[in-house]
Amino acid sequence: MPPESMSAATPDLAPIGVLVLRGARIESWHRVSYAVADGAGRVRHAAGAVDRPIFTRSAVKPLQALALVESGAARRFGVSAAELALASASHSGEACHVAAVTGWLARLGLDQSALACGAHAPLHAASAERLLAAGQTPTAVHNNCSGKHAGMLTLARHLGAPLAGYQRPDHPVQRRIAATLAEMAGLAALPTPATDGCGVPTFPLTLKQLAGAFARLGAPQGLGAMRRAACDQIRAAIRAHPRLVAGTGRACTAIMTAAPELLVKTGAEGVYAAALPEGGIGLALKVEDGAGRAAPVALLALLEALGAVPGAACAALAGTARPEIRNHAGQLVGRIEPAPDWPDL
Amino acid sequence: MPPESMSAATPDLAPIGVLVLRGARIESWHRVSYAVADGAGRVRHAAGAVDRPIFTRSAVKPLQALALVESGAARRFGVSAAELALASASHSGEACHVAAVTGWLARLGLDQSALACGAHAPLHAASAERLLAAGQTPTAVHNNCSGKHAGMLTLARHLGAPLAGYQRPDHPVQRRIAATLAEMAGLAALPTPATDGCGVPTFPLTLKQLAGAFARLGAPQGLGAMRRAACDQIRAAIRAHPRLVAGTGRACTAIMTAAPELLVKTGAEGVYAAALPEGGIGLALKVEDGAGRAAPVALLALLEALGAVPGAACAALAGTARPEIRNHAGQLVGRIEPAPDWPDL
Repeated sequence: MPPESMSAATPDLAPIGVLVLRGARIESWHRVSYAVADGAGRVRHAAGAVDRPIFTRSAVKPLQALALVESGAARRFGVSAAELALASASHSGEACHVAAVTGWLARLGLDQSALACGAHAPLHAASAERLLAAGQTPTAVHNNCSGKHAGMLTLARHLGAPLAGYQRPDHPVQRRIAATLAEMAGLAALPTPATDGCGVPTFPLTLKQLAGAFARLGAPQGLGAMRRAACDQIRAAIRAHPRLVAGTGRACTAIMTAAPELLVKTGAEGVYAAALPEGGIGLALKVEDGAGRAAPVALLALLEALGAVPGAACAALAGTARPEIRNHAGQLVGRIEPAPDWPDL
Repeated sequence: MPPESMSAATPDLAPIGVLVLRGARIESWHRVSYAVADGAGRVRHAAGAVDRPIFTRSAVKPLQALALVESGAARRFGVSAAELALASASHSGEACHVAAVTGWLARLGLDQSALACGAHAPLHAASAERLLAAGQTPTAVHNNCSGKHAGMLTLARHLGAPLAGYQRPDHPVQRRIAATLAEMAGLAALPTPATDGCGVPTFPLTLKQLAGAFARLGAPQGLGAMRRAACDQIRAAIRAHPRLVAGTGRACTAIMTAAPELLVKTGAEGVYAAALPEGGIGLALKVEDGAGRAAPVALLALLEALGAVPGAACAALAGTARPEIRNHAGQLVGRIEPAPDWPDL
């Protein structure tokens, strides 16, 4: 049975946030729930199903990477800022991503066979085509999560835990990561996880909790010294390497290149999270139908409404904020854009 | 501005029809509008935004193919049943589709350069990979709409109209197709079209109108003799060649193979239409967010609720009705399925 909060009659019905236009008409539309919170968990803005736990998916990778730093594993194994960015990444499998993850694994005496994430073709279409045209097949290193998994293997090695099974919920690596995630979300413990696309646990958090966790990541002044330092190090790594966190043409990379004071992270099924360090706030959104095409459009509309995107960055991000739809003949046939009067902040 | 019918407060809010589950929780969900109507346009069942015009996209291809038959073009140019199925198809670009369309064009003295649909990789992943691995690039023949375009070129040749520009709204081919579509939908004229993914006009119809049109296609007894014969010929062609209308592993092919008395046709952005000839009714649905993954799940739930799927076919279609979600490591992590108590027929 769907939870009560999904009934059309309940007040947490998500508003229509994103429109898909074809010619002069609306063809499809997306409902978007969002929460904006500060590091104390106080909610500044909210719409839709913000108290319903959602799977946070890859949006929490920067939070999952904290344990790699705090444990001392990153220092002990000489993990670079670029590698920390990859540990926080949903990368596109471009040459720069593949080379860096391969090198990291080699330093541990490992190769792609140690990765539990499974293989998929590079998200970067041209890279995927080049791979196939060269007669090669994708490996686990091309998986967008391979950097996160390299980080988990590094943590397992540091903890003296078995490498095999590092992805399982009861493995010391995942238990440590879950404990950190719970603390960042302000919870004593996390709900039961499901299995993510790459085989590791994915935990349900409410949008309010996810927004609070990102507020703390961006502005960790109230946290302990170790946690604060880890948050600062992850933020600095991502800021220094926005292309490694996603890739060519991807929204995360474009946004953090144009507005480097922001930290934004996409997750599967229409999730996006952002830290706005200057305002001491975090933002989390979920497109209720899971549409990846709507999530960055919604994110930018929210960030612009919050005044978090400087004018020059808005101009640079116009193609991400209102993407064109072109057909196979190359004609401009439509556009994706925020709904009028949305968001209501 | 979005039309009034899109406001969350209006009574035509589409119910949640399809759930995406991960582990034990709902991860995402899809709202689905639908209408079931008879050939007189009487609505038997309806939910959601059924009076709002939607772009019908490829769902109307069997209706677009009627002009090819009625005009005499199909007979004059020896168009086979397989080719009529391809004219009604969103095919997967498999070898059988490519060979048949290439042969049809050659009979007209044409090749892929005459097609205005643009190129895209075959929808059938293995065929796309083989093409790339062979060092080839996709052509317009691989476009899922290439059969429809071959039919349009055949009609242009028959009408003595220029081949160039056959895709434009004011070309005799498109005017003739639009007139037929309007008649099938019970309209004096169609609203202004937008441009489809393959460059031809796509017309807005309400779900009630689209359901009525498919009721007439399936049970054309009340139509004129020429139209009736054309409907019968298109239906027979599709029924004889369900694999040509879509392809390996695709929902249209699976459903019409398991339940050959049905005619079903998918369209982009979450549209599906079906004719149930035995009941004299038609069905049309739109997933409001445009999700292709939800449309066949919604269609089968509706067809099963209408008693239109025999028991053996239900069993054969279980994987289409409730698709598994597997991650990149091959683990079963979730499922897509109809919402409990949906549809409410």
